[in-house]
Amino acid sequence: MRPQIVLFGDSITEQSFRAGGWGASLADTYSRKADVVNRGYGGYNTRWALFLLHHLFPLSSATPPVAATIFLGANDAALSGRTSERQHVPTEEYKENLRRIVRHLKECSPTMLLVLITPPPVDEFGRKEYASSLYGDKAMELPERTNQVTGVYAKQCIELAKELDLPSIDLWSKMQETEGWQKKFLSDGLHLTAEGNAVVYREVLKIFNDAWLSAPEMPYDFPHHSVIDEKNPEKAFQQQCF
Amino acid sequence: MRPQIVLFGDSITEQSFRAGGWGASLADTYSRKADVVNRGYGGYNTRWALFLLHHLFPLSSATPPVAATIFLGANDAALSGRTSERQHVPTEEYKENLRRIVRHLKECSPTMLLVLITPPPVDEFGRKEYASSLYGDKAMELPERTNQVTGVYAKQCIELAKELDLPSIDLWSKMQETEGWQKKFLSDGLHLTAEGNAVVYREVLKIFNDAWLSAPEMPYDFPHHSVIDEKNPEKAFQQQCF
Repeated sequence: MRPQIVLFGDSITEQSFRAGGWGASLADTYSRKADVVNRGYGGYNTRWALFLLHHLFPLSSATPPVAATIFLGANDAALSGRTSERQHVPTEEYKENLRRIVRHLKECSPTMLLVLITPPPVDEFGRKEYASSLYGDKAMELPERTNQVTGVYAKQCIELAKELDLPSIDLWSKMQETEGWQKKFLSDGLHLTAEGNAVVYREVLKIFNDAWLSAPEMPYDFPHHSVIDEKNPEKAFQQQCF
Repeated sequence: MRPQIVLFGDSITEQSFRAGGWGASLADTYSRKADVVNRGYGGYNTRWALFLLHHLFPLSSATPPVAATIFLGANDAALSGRTSERQHVPTEEYKENLRRIVRHLKECSPTMLLVLITPPPVDEFGRKEYASSLYGDKAMELPERTNQVTGVYAKQCIELAKELDLPSIDLWSKMQETEGWQKKFLSDGLHLTAEGNAVVYREVLKIFNDAWLSAPEMPYDFPHHSVIDEKNPEKAFQQQCF
Protein backbone atom coordinates (compact mmCIF):
# COMPACT_ATOMS: atom_id res chain seq x y z
CA MET A 1 0.00 0.00 0.00
CA ARG A 2 1.16 3.50 -0.81
CA PRO A 3 1.71 5.92 2.06
CA GLN A 4 -1.17 8.31 2.62
CA ILE A 5 -1.04 12.08 3.01
CA VAL A 6 -4.28 13.45 4.43
CA LEU A 7 -5.48 17.01 3.90
CA PHE A 8 -7.73 17.80 6.86
CA GLY A 9 -9.59 21.08 6.92
CA ASP A 10 -12.58 23.14 5.83
CA SER A 11 -13.83 24.31 2.42
CA ILE A 12 -10.39 25.55 1.40
CA THR A 13 -9.25 21.95 1.67
CA GLU A 14 -12.49 20.49 0.29
CA GLN A 15 -12.12 22.61 -2.86
CA SER A 16 -8.43 21.79 -3.27
CA PHE A 17 -9.02 19.38 -6.16
CA ARG A 18 -10.63 21.99 -8.39
CA ALA A 19 -8.63 23.12 -11.44
CA GLY A 20 -5.31 24.49 -10.18
CA GLY A 21 -6.09 23.34 -6.64
CA TRP A 22 -3.31 22.74 -4.13
CA GLY A 23 -4.58 19.24 -3.27
CA ALA A 24 -4.62 18.09 -6.88
CA SER A 25 -1.15 19.57 -7.41
CA LEU A 26 0.16 17.62 -4.42
CA ALA A 27 -1.54 14.46 -5.69
CA ASP A 28 0.20 14.96 -9.02
CA THR A 29 3.58 15.61 -7.40
CA TYR A 30 3.31 12.43 -5.33
CA SER A 31 1.81 10.30 -8.10
CA ARG A 32 3.06 6.70 -7.89
CA LYS A 33 4.59 7.52 -4.49
CA ALA A 34 1.88 8.55 -2.03
CA ASP A 35 -1.89 8.98 -2.11
CA VAL A 36 -3.14 12.45 -1.29
CA VAL A 37 -6.52 12.15 0.37
CA ASN A 38 -9.00 15.00 0.70
CA ARG A 39 -10.67 15.29 4.09
CA GLY A 40 -11.93 18.85 3.72
CA TYR A 41 -15.30 19.73 5.29
CA GLY A 42 -16.78 22.98 4.02
CA GLY A 43 -18.16 25.24 6.75
CA TYR A 44 -16.59 23.25 9.59
CA ASN A 45 -14.85 24.92 12.49
CA THR A 46 -12.41 23.15 14.83
CA ARG A 47 -15.21 22.34 17.30
CA TRP A 48 -17.10 20.31 14.72
CA ALA A 49 -13.91 18.86 13.27
CA LEU A 50 -13.26 17.18 16.63
CA PHE A 51 -16.28 14.93 16.07
CA LEU A 52 -14.61 13.49 12.97
CA LEU A 53 -11.26 12.60 14.50
CA HIS A 54 -11.95 9.04 15.57
CA HIS A 55 -13.75 8.26 12.33
CA LEU A 56 -11.12 9.74 9.99
CA PHE A 57 -8.09 8.72 12.03
CA PRO A 58 -8.97 5.59 14.01
CA LEU A 59 -6.38 4.85 16.67
CA SER A 60 -6.53 1.20 15.71
CA SER A 61 -5.40 1.77 12.13
CA ALA A 62 -2.55 -0.46 11.05
CA THR A 63 -1.59 2.01 8.31
CA PRO A 64 -2.08 5.55 9.59
CA PRO A 65 -1.24 8.45 7.27
CA VAL A 66 2.43 9.42 7.04
CA ALA A 67 1.53 13.10 6.95
CA ALA A 68 -1.41 15.43 7.44
CA THR A 69 -2.10 19.09 6.89
CA ILE A 70 -4.40 20.73 9.45
CA PHE A 71 -5.95 23.77 7.85
CA LEU A 72 -8.76 25.19 10.00
CA GLY A 73 -9.75 28.51 11.46
CA ALA A 74 -11.42 30.44 8.64
CA ASN A 75 -14.82 29.47 10.08
CA ASP A 76 -13.85 29.68 13.76
CA ALA A 77 -13.00 33.32 12.99
CA ALA A 78 -16.56 34.14 11.86
CA LEU A 79 -17.68 36.98 14.12
CA SER A 80 -20.11 36.55 16.95
CA GLY A 81 -23.29 38.53 16.42
CA ARG A 82 -23.01 38.53 12.63
CA THR A 83 -24.56 36.36 9.89
CA SER A 84 -22.10 33.48 10.24
CA GLU A 85 -22.00 33.47 14.03
CA ARG A 86 -23.07 29.84 14.28
CA GLN A 87 -19.59 28.92 13.05
CA HIS A 88 -17.80 31.16 15.54
CA VAL A 89 -15.41 29.54 18.04
CA PRO A 90 -13.55 31.70 20.59
CA THR A 91 -9.81 32.04 19.97
CA GLU A 92 -8.74 30.19 23.13
CA GLU A 93 -11.00 27.26 22.29
CA TYR A 94 -9.72 27.31 18.69
CA LYS A 95 -6.17 26.88 19.91
CA GLU A 96 -7.23 24.17 22.36
CA ASN A 97 -9.16 22.31 19.65
CA LEU A 98 -6.15 22.41 17.34
CA ARG A 99 -4.07 21.03 20.20
CA ARG A 100 -6.53 18.15 20.63
CA ILE A 101 -6.42 17.42 16.90
CA VAL A 102 -2.62 17.32 16.96
CA ARG A 103 -2.63 15.14 20.07
CA HIS A 104 -5.03 12.67 18.46
CA LEU A 105 -3.01 12.44 15.25
CA LYS A 106 0.22 11.95 17.18
CA GLU A 107 -1.49 9.21 19.16
CA CYS A 108 -2.48 7.63 15.84
CA SER A 109 1.13 7.69 14.78
CA PRO A 110 3.95 9.45 16.66
CA THR A 111 5.91 9.78 13.42
CA MET A 112 3.12 11.42 11.42
CA LEU A 113 4.38 14.64 9.83
CA LEU A 114 1.92 17.36 10.81
CA VAL A 115 1.68 20.79 9.22
CA LEU A 116 -0.46 23.50 10.76
CA ILE A 117 -1.80 26.06 8.29
CA THR A 118 -3.37 29.34 9.38
CA PRO A 119 -6.49 30.64 7.66
CA PRO A 120 -5.78 32.93 4.71
CA PRO A 121 -6.33 36.67 5.12
CA VAL A 122 -9.84 38.03 4.59
CA ASP A 123 -10.64 40.72 2.05
CA GLU A 124 -13.66 42.37 3.61
CA PHE A 125 -14.45 44.34 0.47
CA GLY A 126 -14.26 41.14 -1.61
CA ARG A 127 -16.62 39.41 0.83
CA LYS A 128 -19.07 42.27 0.52
CA GLU A 129 -18.93 42.25 -3.27
CA TYR A 130 -19.52 38.51 -3.22
CA ALA A 131 -22.49 38.80 -0.85
CA SER A 132 -24.00 41.55 -3.00
CA SER A 133 -23.62 39.42 -6.10
CA LEU A 134 -25.62 36.68 -4.35
CA TYR A 135 -28.19 38.62 -2.34
CA GLY A 136 -28.23 42.13 -3.85
CA ASP A 137 -29.62 44.72 -1.45
CA LYS A 138 -30.38 42.00 1.07
CA ALA A 139 -26.67 41.32 1.61
CA MET A 140 -25.50 41.92 5.15
CA GLU A 141 -24.19 45.38 5.86
CA LEU A 142 -21.63 44.34 8.45
CA PRO A 143 -18.86 41.91 7.51
CA GLU A 144 -19.19 38.40 8.94
CA ARG A 145 -15.40 38.11 9.13
CA THR A 146 -12.66 40.74 9.40
CA ASN A 147 -9.05 40.40 8.41
CA GLN A 148 -7.90 41.68 11.76
CA VAL A 149 -9.82 39.08 13.78
CA THR A 150 -8.76 36.26 11.45
CA GLY A 151 -5.20 37.44 12.10
CA VAL A 152 -5.70 36.74 15.81
CA TYR A 153 -6.65 33.14 14.99
CA ALA A 154 -3.66 32.85 12.67
CA LYS A 155 -1.42 33.98 15.51
CA GLN A 156 -2.87 31.33 17.85
CA CYS A 157 -2.22 28.67 15.23
CA ILE A 158 1.42 29.71 14.78
CA GLU A 159 1.92 29.97 18.56
CA LEU A 160 0.63 26.44 19.01
CA ALA A 161 2.92 25.15 16.28
CA LYS A 162 5.87 26.73 18.10
CA GLU A 163 4.78 25.31 21.44
CA LEU A 164 4.49 21.82 19.94
CA ASP A 165 7.54 22.21 17.70
CA LEU A 166 5.53 21.53 14.55
CA PRO A 167 6.08 22.98 11.09
CA SER A 168 3.51 25.61 10.15
CA ILE A 169 2.50 27.95 7.37
CA ASP A 170 1.49 31.48 8.30
CA LEU A 171 -0.70 31.88 5.24
CA TRP A 172 -2.38 34.94 6.72
CA SER A 173 0.94 36.84 6.81
CA LYS A 174 2.52 35.23 3.76
CA MET A 175 -0.27 36.23 1.38
CA GLN A 176 -0.38 39.81 2.60
CA GLU A 177 3.27 40.27 1.65
CA THR A 178 2.16 40.40 -2.00
CA GLU A 179 0.64 43.60 -3.30
CA GLY A 180 -2.90 43.08 -4.54
CA TRP A 181 -3.30 39.86 -2.50
CA GLN A 182 -7.02 40.62 -2.14
CA LYS A 183 -7.82 39.76 -5.77
CA LYS A 184 -4.69 37.86 -6.69
CA PHE A 185 -5.10 35.13 -4.09
CA LEU A 186 -8.77 35.30 -3.08
CA SER A 187 -11.76 34.65 -5.34
CA ASP A 188 -14.50 35.92 -3.02
CA GLY A 189 -12.50 37.52 -0.25
CA LEU A 190 -12.05 34.18 1.54
CA HIS A 191 -11.53 31.22 -0.81
CA LEU A 192 -8.49 30.78 -3.03
CA THR A 193 -7.87 31.60 -6.68
CA ALA A 194 -5.56 29.38 -8.72
CA GLU A 195 -2.69 31.66 -7.69
CA GLY A 196 -3.74 31.44 -4.05
CA ASN A 197 -3.80 27.66 -4.38
CA ALA A 198 -0.30 27.78 -5.83
CA VAL A 199 0.96 29.59 -2.71
CA VAL A 200 -0.44 26.86 -0.45
CA TYR A 201 0.96 24.13 -2.71
CA ARG A 202 4.45 25.66 -2.72
CA GLU A 203 4.51 26.20 1.05
CA VAL A 204 3.30 22.70 1.88
CA LEU A 205 5.75 21.18 -0.57
CA LYS A 206 8.62 23.16 0.94
CA ILE A 207 7.85 21.69 4.37
CA PHE A 208 7.42 18.16 3.00
CA ASN A 209 10.72 18.46 1.11
CA ASP A 210 12.57 19.77 4.16
CA ALA A 211 11.21 16.88 6.20
CA TRP A 212 11.57 13.31 4.99
CA LEU A 213 8.74 13.46 2.49
CA SER A 214 10.48 14.71 -0.63
CA ALA A 215 8.75 13.24 -3.69
CA PRO A 216 11.87 13.06 -5.89
CA GLU A 217 13.61 11.01 -3.20
CA MET A 218 10.73 8.60 -2.70
CA PRO A 219 10.71 5.34 -4.64
CA TYR A 220 8.10 4.51 -7.26
CA ASP A 221 5.61 1.94 -6.02
CA PHE A 222 6.43 -0.28 -9.02
CA PRO A 223 9.20 -0.37 -11.62
CA HIS A 224 9.51 2.58 -13.97
CA HIS A 225 8.58 1.32 -17.43
CA SER A 226 12.09 2.04 -18.71
CA VAL A 227 13.66 -0.57 -16.42
CA ILE A 228 11.32 -3.35 -17.50
CA ASP A 229 13.10 -5.84 -19.73
CA GLU A 230 10.56 -6.58 -22.45
CA LYS A 231 11.95 -10.06 -22.95
CA ASN A 232 11.78 -10.85 -19.27
CA PRO A 233 9.36 -8.46 -17.57
CA GLU A 234 8.78 -10.60 -14.47
CA LYS A 235 12.33 -9.88 -13.36
CA ALA A 236 11.66 -6.17 -12.71
CA PHE A 237 8.50 -7.02 -10.79
CA GLN A 238 10.16 -9.70 -8.69
CA GLN A 239 12.81 -7.23 -7.61
CA GLN A 240 10.67 -4.19 -6.95
CA CYS A 241 7.35 -5.53 -5.75
CA PHE A 242 6.80 -5.85 -2.07
CA MET B 1 -14.48 4.52 5.18
CA ARG B 2 -15.43 6.26 1.97
CA PRO B 3 -15.97 4.15 -1.13
CA GLN B 4 -13.01 4.09 -3.49
CA ILE B 5 -12.97 4.70 -7.23
CA VAL B 6 -9.71 3.52 -8.80
CA LEU B 7 -8.32 4.89 -12.06
CA PHE B 8 -6.16 2.13 -13.51
CA GLY B 9 -4.13 2.83 -16.61
CA ASP B 10 -1.03 4.29 -18.20
CA SER B 11 0.41 7.82 -18.39
CA ILE B 12 -2.93 9.30 -19.46
CA THR B 13 -4.24 8.15 -16.09
CA GLU B 14 -1.03 8.95 -14.20
CA GLN B 15 -1.19 12.56 -15.46
CA SER B 16 -4.89 12.90 -14.69
CA PHE B 17 -4.32 15.05 -11.58
CA ARG B 18 -2.49 17.79 -13.46
CA ALA B 19 -4.32 21.13 -13.83
CA GLY B 20 -7.61 20.42 -15.61
CA GLY B 21 -7.01 16.67 -15.39
CA TRP B 22 -9.92 14.23 -15.56
CA GLY B 23 -8.85 12.44 -12.37
CA ALA B 24 -8.73 15.63 -10.31
CA SER B 25 -12.11 16.67 -11.72
CA LEU B 26 -13.61 13.34 -10.68
CA ALA B 27 -12.03 13.68 -7.23
CA ASP B 28 -13.62 17.10 -6.92
CA THR B 29 -17.02 15.87 -8.10
CA TYR B 30 -16.98 13.04 -5.56
CA SER B 31 -15.48 15.08 -2.72
CA ARG B 32 -16.92 14.00 0.65
CA LYS B 33 -18.52 11.01 -1.09
CA ALA B 34 -15.85 8.78 -2.61
CA ASP B 35 -12.07 8.78 -2.88
CA VAL B 36 -10.68 8.83 -6.39
CA VAL B 37 -7.38 6.98 -6.41
CA ASN B 38 -4.79 7.28 -9.15
CA ARG B 39 -3.23 4.02 -10.26
CA GLY B 40 -1.78 5.22 -13.54
CA TYR B 41 1.57 3.80 -14.68
CA GLY B 42 3.26 5.79 -17.42
CA GLY B 43 4.62 3.67 -20.25
CA TYR B 44 2.85 0.50 -19.14
CA ASN B 45 1.09 -1.79 -21.57
CA THR B 46 -1.51 -4.41 -20.58
CA ARG B 47 1.15 -7.12 -20.34
CA TRP B 48 3.04 -5.25 -17.63
CA ALA B 49 -0.17 -4.07 -15.96
CA LEU B 50 -1.03 -7.72 -15.25
CA PHE B 51 1.89 -7.89 -12.82
CA LEU B 52 0.27 -5.20 -10.70
CA LEU B 53 -3.18 -6.76 -10.36
CA HIS B 54 -2.70 -8.74 -7.17
CA HIS B 55 -0.83 -5.89 -5.52
CA LEU B 56 -3.28 -3.14 -6.44
CA PHE B 57 -6.42 -5.22 -6.10
CA PRO B 58 -5.77 -7.97 -3.57
CA LEU B 59 -8.48 -10.62 -3.63
CA SER B 60 -8.47 -10.63 0.16
CA SER B 61 -9.43 -6.96 0.50
CA ALA B 62 -12.35 -6.36 2.83
CA THR B 63 -13.08 -3.04 1.11
CA PRO B 64 -12.48 -3.40 -2.61
CA PRO B 65 -13.09 -0.36 -4.83
CA VAL B 66 -16.70 0.29 -5.84
CA ALA B 67 -15.62 1.28 -9.34
CA ALA B 68 -12.60 1.26 -11.61
CA THR B 69 -11.71 2.70 -14.97
CA ILE B 70 -9.44 0.56 -17.13
CA PHE B 71 -7.68 2.80 -19.60
CA LEU B 72 -4.88 0.97 -21.42
CA GLY B 73 -3.79 0.35 -24.97
CA ALA B 74 -1.92 3.51 -26.02
CA ASN B 75 1.38 1.70 -25.35
CA ASP B 76 0.27 -1.73 -26.53
CA ALA B 77 -0.36 -0.03 -29.88
CA ALA B 78 3.26 1.10 -30.25
CA LEU B 79 4.45 -0.40 -33.54
CA SER B 80 6.75 -3.36 -33.75
CA GLY B 81 10.05 -2.47 -35.41
CA ARG B 82 9.89 1.21 -34.44
CA THR B 83 11.45 3.21 -31.58
CA SER B 84 8.84 2.23 -28.98
CA GLU B 85 8.60 -1.42 -29.97
CA ARG B 86 9.47 -2.66 -26.48
CA GLN B 87 6.00 -1.52 -25.40
CA HIS B 88 4.23 -3.26 -28.27
CA VAL B 89 1.69 -5.96 -27.45
CA PRO B 90 -0.16 -7.78 -30.27
CA THR B 91 -3.87 -6.92 -30.58
CA GLU B 92 -5.13 -10.40 -29.67
CA GLU B 93 -2.99 -10.45 -26.54
CA TYR B 94 -4.14 -6.91 -25.70
CA LYS B 95 -7.75 -8.02 -25.73
CA GLU B 96 -6.92 -11.14 -23.72
CA ASN B 97 -4.98 -9.11 -21.14
CA LEU B 98 -7.90 -6.71 -20.75
CA ARG B 99 -10.15 -9.72 -20.22
CA ARG B 100 -7.84 -10.98 -17.47
CA ILE B 101 -7.85 -7.57 -15.80
CA VAL B 102 -11.66 -7.48 -15.86
CA ARG B 103 -11.85 -11.05 -14.56
CA HIS B 104 -9.52 -10.24 -11.67
CA LEU B 105 -11.44 -7.11 -10.69
CA LYS B 106 -14.75 -8.94 -10.84
CA GLU B 107 -13.24 -11.63 -8.65
CA CYS B 108 -12.22 -8.89 -6.21
CA SER B 109 -15.78 -7.67 -6.14
CA PRO B 110 -18.57 -8.90 -8.43
CA THR B 111 -20.40 -5.59 -7.97
CA MET B 112 -17.46 -3.38 -8.94
CA LEU B 113 -18.51 -0.95 -11.68
CA LEU B 114 -15.95 -1.33 -14.47
CA VAL B 115 -15.49 1.09 -17.34
CA LEU B 116 -13.27 0.20 -20.28
CA ILE B 117 -11.74 3.19 -22.06
CA THR B 118 -10.04 2.90 -25.45
CA PRO B 119 -6.80 4.72 -26.16
CA PRO B 120 -7.29 8.21 -27.63
CA PRO B 121 -6.56 8.75 -31.31
CA VAL B 122 -2.98 9.44 -32.34
CA ASP B 123 -1.95 12.55 -34.25
CA GLU B 124 1.08 11.33 -36.15
CA PHE B 125 2.07 14.83 -37.20
CA GLY B 126 1.83 16.02 -33.58
CA ARG B 127 4.01 13.10 -32.46
CA LYS B 128 6.60 14.03 -35.05
CA GLU B 129 6.59 17.68 -34.02
CA TYR B 130 7.00 16.63 -30.41
CA ALA B 131 9.91 14.28 -31.21
CA SER B 132 11.64 16.99 -33.23
CA SER B 133 11.25 19.46 -30.36
CA LEU B 134 13.02 16.95 -28.09
CA TYR B 135 15.62 15.40 -30.39
CA GLY B 136 15.94 17.76 -33.36
CA ASP B 137 17.34 16.06 -36.45
CA LYS B 138 17.88 12.88 -34.49
CA ALA B 139 14.12 12.36 -34.11
CA MET B 140 12.85 9.17 -35.69
CA GLU B 141 11.66 9.46 -39.24
CA LEU B 142 8.96 6.80 -39.01
CA PRO B 143 6.11 7.19 -36.53
CA GLU B 144 6.21 4.89 -33.51
CA ARG B 145 2.41 4.81 -33.42
CA THR B 146 -0.21 5.36 -36.12
CA ASN B 147 -3.79 6.41 -35.67
CA GLN B 148 -5.00 3.57 -37.81
CA VAL B 149 -3.28 0.87 -35.76
CA THR B 150 -4.39 2.43 -32.46
CA GLY B 151 -7.91 2.27 -33.91
CA VAL B 152 -7.59 -1.50 -34.19
CA TYR B 153 -6.79 -1.68 -30.47
CA ALA B 154 -9.69 0.63 -29.68
CA LYS B 155 -11.98 -1.73 -31.60
CA GLN B 156 -10.74 -4.72 -29.60
CA CYS B 157 -11.44 -2.86 -26.38
CA ILE B 158 -15.00 -1.98 -27.41
CA GLU B 159 -15.63 -5.53 -28.65
CA LEU B 160 -14.52 -6.95 -25.32
CA ALA B 161 -16.78 -4.53 -23.43
CA LYS B 162 -19.72 -5.75 -25.55
CA GLU B 163 -18.81 -9.40 -25.01
CA LEU B 164 -18.64 -8.87 -21.26
CA ASP B 165 -21.58 -6.45 -21.15
CA LEU B 166 -19.49 -3.68 -19.59
CA PRO B 167 -19.83 0.05 -20.12
CA SER B 168 -17.11 1.52 -22.32
CA ILE B 169 -15.89 4.76 -23.81
CA ASP B 170 -14.74 4.72 -27.42
CA LEU B 171 -12.43 7.66 -26.93
CA TRP B 172 -10.67 6.95 -30.21
CA SER B 173 -13.88 7.51 -32.18
CA LYS B 174 -15.41 10.10 -29.90
CA MET B 175 -12.50 12.53 -30.12
CA GLN B 176 -12.26 12.27 -33.90
CA GLU B 177 -15.85 13.51 -34.22
CA THR B 178 -14.60 17.00 -33.35
CA GLU B 179 -12.86 19.01 -36.02
CA GLY B 180 -9.31 19.89 -35.07
CA TRP B 181 -9.14 17.06 -32.51
CA GLN B 182 -5.41 16.75 -33.21
CA LYS B 183 -4.52 19.98 -31.40
CA LYS B 184 -7.70 20.53 -29.44
CA PHE B 185 -7.55 17.30 -27.47
CA LEU B 186 -3.90 16.18 -27.76
CA SER B 187 -0.86 18.05 -26.44
CA ASP B 188 1.85 16.00 -28.15
CA GLY B 189 -0.16 13.85 -30.51
CA LEU B 190 -0.85 11.29 -27.75
CA HIS B 191 -1.43 12.81 -24.30
CA LEU B 192 -4.40 15.00 -23.43
CA THR B 193 -4.84 18.75 -23.30
CA ALA B 194 -7.17 20.27 -20.69
CA GLU B 195 -9.97 19.99 -23.28
CA GLY B 196 -9.07 16.39 -23.96
CA ASN B 197 -9.18 15.72 -20.23
CA ALA B 198 -12.61 17.33 -20.10
CA VAL B 199 -13.89 14.84 -22.70
CA VAL B 200 -12.71 11.88 -20.61
CA TYR B 201 -14.16 13.42 -17.44
CA ARG B 202 -17.58 13.99 -19.05
CA GLU B 203 -17.74 10.51 -20.56
CA VAL B 204 -16.73 8.75 -17.35
CA LEU B 205 -19.17 10.83 -15.33
CA LYS B 206 -21.99 10.02 -17.75
CA ILE B 207 -21.42 6.31 -17.19
CA PHE B 208 -21.12 6.69 -13.41
CA ASN B 209 -24.32 8.75 -13.34
CA ASP B 210 -26.22 6.25 -15.46
CA ALA B 211 -25.08 3.47 -13.15
CA TRP B 212 -25.56 3.72 -9.39
CA LEU B 213 -22.64 6.03 -8.79
CA SER B 214 -24.20 9.45 -9.25
CA ALA B 215 -22.41 11.94 -6.97
CA PRO B 216 -25.46 14.16 -6.33
CA GLU B 217 -27.40 11.12 -5.13
CA MET B 218 -24.66 9.86 -2.83
CA PRO B 219 -24.73 10.90 0.83
CA TYR B 220 -22.08 13.09 2.39
CA ASP B 221 -19.76 11.09 4.65
CA PHE B 222 -20.58 13.46 7.55
CA PRO B 223 -23.26 16.07 8.21
CA HIS B 224 -23.34 19.11 5.97
CA HIS B 225 -22.32 22.06 8.12
CA SER B 226 -25.74 23.69 7.65
CA VAL B 227 -27.54 20.87 9.52
CA ILE B 228 -25.29 21.08 12.57
CA ASP B 229 -27.10 22.68 15.50
CA GLU B 230 -24.47 24.97 17.00
CA LYS B 231 -26.02 24.64 20.44
CA ASN B 232 -26.04 20.88 20.25
CA PRO B 233 -23.56 19.72 17.57
CA GLU B 234 -23.20 16.16 18.85
CA LYS B 235 -26.76 15.44 17.75
CA ALA B 236 -25.96 15.75 14.04
CA PHE B 237 -22.92 13.53 14.46
CA GLN B 238 -24.78 10.88 16.44
CA GLN B 239 -27.36 10.63 13.69
CA GLN B 240 -25.12 10.66 10.67
CA CYS B 241 -21.92 8.98 11.77
CA PHE B 242 -21.56 5.31 11.16
